[in-house]
Amino acid sequence: MLSKNTIKYINSLKISKFRNEHCAFIVEGTKSVSELLQSSTEVLALYATETWIAQNPVPTTALHVVTDSEMNRISSLSSPPGILAVAKIPDFQQQHYTSKGNFGLVLDGINDPGNLGTIIRSADWFGLRNIIISKDTVDPYHPKVVQSTMGSIFRIQFLETDLEEFLTNARSAGTKVFGAVMEGSNVYTTNLTNVSALLVIGSESHGIRKPLLKCIDTMITIPRIRLEGNQSAESLNAAVAGSLLLAEFMRGQLIK
Amino acid sequence: MLSKNTIKYINSLKISKFRNEHCAFIVEGTKSVSELLQSSTEVLALYATETWIAQNPVPTTALHVVTDSEMNRISSLSSPPGILAVAKIPDFQQQHYTSKGNFGLVLDGINDPGNLGTIIRSADWFGLRNIIISKDTVDPYHPKVVQSTMGSIFRIQFLETDLEEFLTNARSAGTKVFGAVMEGSNVYTTNLTNVSALLVIGSESHGIRKPLLKCIDTMITIPRIRLEGNQSAESLNAAVAGSLLLAEFMRGQLIK
Repeated sequence: MLSKNTIKYINSLKISKFRNEHCAFIVEGTKSVSELLQSSTEVLALYATETWIAQNPVPTTALHVVTDSEMNRISSLSSPPGILAVAKIPDFQQQHYTSKGNFGLVLDGINDPGNLGTIIRSADWFGLRNIIISKDTVDPYHPKVVQSTMGSIFRIQFLETDLEEFLTNARSAGTKVFGAVMEGSNVYTTNLTNVSALLVIGSESHGIRKPLLKCIDTMITIPRIRLEGNQSAESLNAAVAGSLLLAEFMRGQLIK
Repeated sequence: MLSKNTIKYINSLKISKFRNEHCAFIVEGTKSVSELLQSSTEVLALYATETWIAQNPVPTTALHVVTDSEMNRISSLSSPPGILAVAKIPDFQQQHYTSKGNFGLVLDGINDPGNLGTIIRSADWFGLRNIIISKDTVDPYHPKVVQSTMGSIFRIQFLETDLEEFLTNARSAGTKVFGAVMEGSNVYTTNLTNVSALLVIGSESHGIRKPLLKCIDTMITIPRIRLEGNQSAESLNAAVAGSLLLAEFMRGQLIK
């Protein structure tokens, strides 16, 4: 049985402030928990319902058996999948940049958890190992972000920092900064093969914030195909746009 | 004031069966309704709260003023944006294929409304005007799909059909069929410049259904970049994968 305090503690982790205070976050679902258990991320506690245990190979990690009603009280999902873990937020203070080809992804104020999660998943697919995020980007350990990364959250390191300072320093060190905007050079005809490059992506509604634009060397855009006499989409979904641009930067490695 | 019957009617449109029966669907939010009003899709009714009216230019279309509480009762969203339209589902029986370059997108059993909506939005961006969908693909007029297309729903025609028959006929007519799978040819090194081509995308969890695989000429894959000694993402989000592939088929036009 779960104590009131445990239920309260797990529920507090749905809020950013308490995740930071406890250095812990929630992971739900068979696929995500299985990825967690295979990762180097520390598991603090594991909760499963009897129904889940009856249908799945039981992990070797110590498991708390909870009732369906208890699971409903700790889950963030409307249909709880029956398995929930509390994991430790990794300490990235000592991180160093290990992404392939010295390419870095910078996210400025992405506020939709699903979009952030999907971008993290694409970054993982394309071999990135860290992402630089602005302080007002949604917390990567938000339950909905974790959910939509489908396990990629455990393979990516995050550096939350002041982007103006970060980009200024990067440029001084010779890194070329690209920014995704509505009216920039066609990404498909721009030379992206740089020794060291950063790609900045802003939020779907506001784009890259104005003060950051001066830190950008080349503005790039995914061109739109307009049909004669027809209106067309005003923008792409932020996660889609981010993934399309990411693929272009990785193209040199993808055609090998 | 809204009658009980009107409330019941609007709520029934959240269910596929009743949307088909009434040939009507729900559109919510300032941006989506504004796109609806500019489109050729017929508006059957328009509802707005006084708060919304006070903050927005009022459309010329006849408007029913409703209270916040009435809006809560008809909205599909947890935070209703204050404007909701009921629109007529267009009749596509007479449709003909007008997508650029004789390229067609075929969706097999996409079941996540957000993913379908995002794919529709990308298709609109890249100049497609129709999408072929299997009978078990989520209904494009589902409120969540409409929402995530951000207005693109009004520019795309849908042909819901038996895909096996459709693809077989298309191949007999000389169209080359490509299918997105986990283990296929690298899409970035495959020749995609065909006079006439169809791209089949399956669901994120099941991929393209087995009986359809025999209708596919070339299996293609978005390659993954694996780092030494590291695990990586098992798959991409379906909307991201679909958009990445779509961009590759459109590349010839995008680099012009």
